[in-house]
Amino acid sequence: MAPLMAGGSSRKMRIGLIGAGRIGQVHCKAVAATPVAEVVVVADFFVKAAQACAEKFGIAKYCQDWNEVVQDALVDAVFICSPSDTHCDIIIAAARNGKHIFVEKPIDYELSRIDLALQEVAKANVKLQVGFQRRFDPNFMRVKKAMVDGEVGEPYMLSIISRDPAPPPIDYVKKSGGLLYDMAIHDMDMARHIMGCEAIEFSAMASSFSPEISAVGDVTTAVVTMRFENGAIGTIQCCRKAVYGYDQRIEVLGSNGGVEIGNNYPNTAVVSTAANISRDLPLNFFMERYAAAYANEIFAFVEAVVEDKPTLVTGKDGRIPVIMAMAAKKALDERRCVSIREVLYGNSKL
Amino acid sequence: MAPLMAGGSSRKMRIGLIGAGRIGQVHCKAVAATPVAEVVVVADFFVKAAQACAEKFGIAKYCQDWNEVVQDALVDAVFICSPSDTHCDIIIAAARNGKHIFVEKPIDYELSRIDLALQEVAKANVKLQVGFQRRFDPNFMRVKKAMVDGEVGEPYMLSIISRDPAPPPIDYVKKSGGLLYDMAIHDMDMARHIMGCEAIEFSAMASSFSPEISAVGDVTTAVVTMRFENGAIGTIQCCRKAVYGYDQRIEVLGSNGGVEIGNNYPNTAVVSTAANISRDLPLNFFMERYAAAYANEIFAFVEAVVEDKPTLVTGKDGRIPVIMAMAAKKALDERRCVSIREVLYGNSKL
Amino acid sequence: MAPLMAGGSSRKMRIGLIGAGRIGQVHCKAVAATPVAEVVVVADFFVKAAQACAEKFGIAKYCQDWNEVVQDALVDAVFICSPSDTHCDIIIAAARNGKHIFVEKPIDYELSRIDLALQEVAKANVKLQVGFQRRFDPNFMRVKKAMVDGEVGEPYMLSIISRDPAPPPIDYVKKSGGLLYDMAIHDMDMARHIMGCEAIEFSAMASSFSPEISAVGDVTTAVVTMRFENGAIGTIQCCRKAVYGYDQRIEVLGSNGGVEIGNNYPNTAVVSTAANISRDLPLNFFMERYAAAYANEIFAFVEAVVEDKPTLVTGKDGRIPVIMAMAAKKALDERRCVSIREVLYGNSKL
Amino acid sequence: MAPLMAGGSSRKMRIGLIGAGRIGQVHCKAVAATPVAEVVVVADFFVKAAQACAEKFGIAKYCQDWNEVVQDALVDAVFICSPSDTHCDIIIAAARNGKHIFVEKPIDYELSRIDLALQEVAKANVKLQVGFQRRFDPNFMRVKKAMVDGEVGEPYMLSIISRDPAPPPIDYVKKSGGLLYDMAIHDMDMARHIMGCEAIEFSAMASSFSPEISAVGDVTTAVVTMRFENGAIGTIQCCRKAVYGYDQRIEVLGSNGGVEIGNNYPNTAVVSTAANISRDLPLNFFMERYAAAYANEIFAFVEAVVEDKPTLVTGKDGRIPVIMAMAAKKALDERRCVSIREVLYGNSKL
Repeated sequence: MAPLMAGGSSRKMRIGLIGAGRIGQVHCKAVAATPVAEVVVVADFFVKAAQACAEKFGIAKYCQDWNEVVQDALVDAVFICSPSDTHCDIIIAAARNGKHIFVEKPIDYELSRIDLALQEVAKANVKLQVGFQRRFDPNFMRVKKAMVDGEVGEPYMLSIISRDPAPPPIDYVKKSGGLLYDMAIHDMDMARHIMGCEAIEFSAMASSFSPEISAVGDVTTAVVTMRFENGAIGTIQCCRKAVYGYDQRIEVLGSNGGVEIGNNYPNTAVVSTAANISRDLPLNFFMERYAAAYANEIFAFVEAVVEDKPTLVTGKDGRIPVIMAMAAKKALDERRCVSIREVLYGNSKL
Repeated sequence: MAPLMAGGSSRKMRIGLIGAGRIGQVHCKAVAATPVAEVVVVADFFVKAAQACAEKFGIAKYCQDWNEVVQDALVDAVFICSPSDTHCDIIIAAARNGKHIFVEKPIDYELSRIDLALQEVAKANVKLQVGFQRRFDPNFMRVKKAMVDGEVGEPYMLSIISRDPAPPPIDYVKKSGGLLYDMAIHDMDMARHIMGCEAIEFSAMASSFSPEISAVGDVTTAVVTMRFENGAIGTIQCCRKAVYGYDQRIEVLGSNGGVEIGNNYPNTAVVSTAANISRDLPLNFFMERYAAAYANEIFAFVEAVVEDKPTLVTGKDGRIPVIMAMAAKKALDERRCVSIREVLYGNSKL
Repeated sequence: MAPLMAGGSSRKMRIGLIGAGRIGQVHCKAVAATPVAEVVVVADFFVKAAQACAEKFGIAKYCQDWNEVVQDALVDAVFICSPSDTHCDIIIAAARNGKHIFVEKPIDYELSRIDLALQEVAKANVKLQVGFQRRFDPNFMRVKKAMVDGEVGEPYMLSIISRDPAPPPIDYVKKSGGLLYDMAIHDMDMARHIMGCEAIEFSAMASSFSPEISAVGDVTTAVVTMRFENGAIGTIQCCRKAVYGYDQRIEVLGSNGGVEIGNNYPNTAVVSTAANISRDLPLNFFMERYAAAYANEIFAFVEAVVEDKPTLVTGKDGRIPVIMAMAAKKALDERRCVSIREVLYGNSKL
Repeated sequence: MAPLMAGGSSRKMRIGLIGAGRIGQVHCKAVAATPVAEVVVVADFFVKAAQACAEKFGIAKYCQDWNEVVQDALVDAVFICSPSDTHCDIIIAAARNGKHIFVEKPIDYELSRIDLALQEVAKANVKLQVGFQRRFDPNFMRVKKAMVDGEVGEPYMLSIISRDPAPPPIDYVKKSGGLLYDMAIHDMDMARHIMGCEAIEFSAMASSFSPEISAVGDVTTAVVTMRFENGAIGTIQCCRKAVYGYDQRIEVLGSNGGVEIGNNYPNTAVVSTAANISRDLPLNFFMERYAAAYANEIFAFVEAVVEDKPTLVTGKDGRIPVIMAMAAKKALDERRCVSIREVLYGNSKL
């Protein structure tokens, strides 16, 4: 392949999209908004979805089999937006074909499979970015900046509130891996990203307020407490249901002060009546709340590839939250504090 | 021309852009984001600007002379983003060529020229939309909704705060028509839009806090007070300089309550230190603050053309704020209340 | 009389209260909270009210005739909380008897009577403080501090919102002197207090949204615009009715930035439901909103007397807002800008 | 003794104050503000403090020995504001003398001593109220109301943030019983008060960010997680140091929505400069933040005695937080979840 645009070349970076569902289309839009990349092929097991996506975004080619994409000589990078259980296989195949990789979270829930996939990525020396889009949200970025710039100082406490507007369908819950793997894992990524070091000890408590969810052995509500290497204590408060909408907040307290972020709203209007002073509900769910974040993460990945820089969310970043979820689950099940070392027995490094 | 996409056709609406400057490019981006329209030609007196714009947005054709655009048989609609003093000539030519028209504000500052242009538009029965983008801003839209839905009730008072981060270059000020024509006019549009009726009496007071701006006979700071047909009293508080950034707020009080909107911020982070509790400055200027509004107004115009519906900001909407600015200026100069009828003497209708 | 407590004496400052109504009782409470003053006599035309007040606050003596109070040798200072039309007579009598004076606003609505009273005060060299309690409100004090400390810089604009929860009874309105004298006058005091200089030009526009109030020749809604000596432009937006409660806000914009204050609330709770995000209504009216301010102004007066310092709200401060209301009323009636000099023709000084 | 004021009697309730320190004086002020009670005697081991307090608040009698107070035939009720380790002895003596009791928190840290004292109170059938003043704070009261009124619905999660502006002197820390007993205990009271049921399982994690505090075996930072009888999960996040001031917030999420409260501020002013948008720091510490709450709790106790109603914070309410702190401490030390039953082994009831 000819070199990419950087360094004077004017060739666009060529992307093969695997998975033409909602999130795949979100990424197509982001690619359309950057002049240095283009989607050249889209694959989906439901080939009609691939076709519709190709038409909507003016993509030249579509197919059913993702193997065609990873083997396509034209393709510089693949976006893996297919079901989670296909991620590792596609990563391995893409790496072996020398393609750069953007993969939706989670890489997988099996640590051994993740390790295998990341070894192939390392061997092939291709770039890989995991889709933890919240890291690219302007609010969370501002918290990170407050940490990096010293506004917070030495961190003491971290508190994450993470609530969905409503539980997913019960069929989804069944296959989700449970609240800690499905929901808290994203907050775990955020926790270690903000803290800038690893969590080494976990405790957890949980309840279910849905008989339907209890029936499939899961919980609706959980608190995870973590001790970090720097001594800071962090909490994640997860809930499947907040009737007022998607609730994603974080705050950090440190020696120099604190920083906290709130939710995003559709407008700033405040209405005052004889009853109360009110504003509209926050943006309802992740597609609205993280619209800018989704675009930003794609711009960052494209930039990393085009300018040959490291990606901002690495394979390690995809791997560690799985270990954290394992530790939190063990702590929950055994009603005790669990150290990360216990979980990693046999795994030599974090 | 073949019919547009609506009604089963799959042809995109074809736009000719006149003026390849900043706002022209903003509109190109909005067009790129809708699947039902495309820019097919771009003209700019500085032909290199036209060329650069064509390359950046993949526009097939560019030229220097706007006459080529209005006469281009392919073109369904023109976007007039050239200097204000060219607007009326282009409107007239476009109308005579049967093109729909999106024209940046102001149509013109001369009422007689505006009337001439709008007569041609009426004669040609083409659609025209004026670029009062604030009407499409989610905050102002929520205020309008509070009025329409009865949350406010019978309106008593309207208060508009309108402040720029810094005065424009003095050369711009010289040709701007003065603070009332250049700046307050947009707030006048918002005032009558929100109020849903016309202002009939004006009073104004102004000061200059810039020797440079005083020297060219203009002011930096003005308050305009208006009585509306429904008896409500409105104020517009304009200032060329607010060091903390672009400040655009509005509130309405009525029999059922009040509604007010604030500024938009880059993030929701609140930082607490030993000094104070703070947040970052609001979005600095109109391009950031009204990013969504600019896109929304273009989507609305495209929809009006494609679906053959009335535009949401008509020629009349572009004409009346000019009359309001005339009345306010007269009130300011003569230090007295001035009725709109006085200004319109010889003009039969509002 | 023996000297007061300051300077080592332990005698309390002795106050005679004239008017045992609501505001008189509020002041009794404030006096009770300071160890350096006490109310020793209370007079009220309705002698039962005087008696009840005396019992409630443990005041040794009560009477019907205010002359007894101003002539009482024990009394150091009088609090004039009787109807407005008695203020000047009492001031004059108190001054002639060498009593210090705390007088509720307004001193009077007749400039000539005010001047006569203030001349007697000057002649007697007693202290006088006018009850503009808002100057002692923590919010307004913070705005003043922002002006004094340079946070605002050179002031450009001042905006005051002043709204009552509901119109007073129509009998009160009839005798009130009209919206500008009755309501806006307090905002005029605040305007010149915050601005630190005088308003020199006035404009006004008003409407009535109450047939009952229209019928007695008054308005419910008014905007007053003022130019100050320093060039700043100020607005006062008054309304008799805001269904959500007492609404008293102010903001200043200047060369270094802006400062604004909001209302006070009974609590900080924010309730999020499936309908909206809401908080309780603001404190409903002046007794709640200005509870701290009423106490603070009394502490300040007592301190001024005990420590022989100038009062913080002088006779001049009580006189000028009357002139401002006269100018605003003239501007409203004559639909033109009115300079303060016009109003003061024959009055040599502000 | 003659009956109290209720029922037509005009006798004031007579209070004997034990402990003339800061909090004792705060309560004197509250008593002064109610017409139905008076402090008639004050005792303090430092008799000069008792004397000074008596002079300041016009209390007729003072002494060194608290026994004189509890045996004083004039006294209806005692306020126990002496050091914690004297509380139980005084409670027992007061109860045996038939005095009603207001006792500062904690009753004691030894469960056996508390039980003994409360048995005497029950035997004597006197009223006892524990000084958990936060229950009388308007913000926390609004949260409780949201729970009681059904705004929250079935509770899912409770989150308490509790941070002091700075650690106390190390000598205080040494004797404090540790962060959980000294600081978290008040949040534990709030947790069960808001939740309306008991916490039955505890987990805790803690760190120290002060070498000095580590050296005396204590921590600066702790998170306690609790499961309540209703299934809700609660967290308390405590820290000895928040440089921006006293930080006391709470939020509850439930099936119908959420409610959260913020801090209280000295004013509502928002200052906008070229640097940021800021407000002043929150009220710095408990004396300022809970000024109204301290008065309210005394009014409530006086009312309970005068009107012969149950107190709003009972002996049981003082006892249970001690058990909660015991459980949390055990959970922290043993790095595991601890049930309240474990701690209560041998104690038959909560």
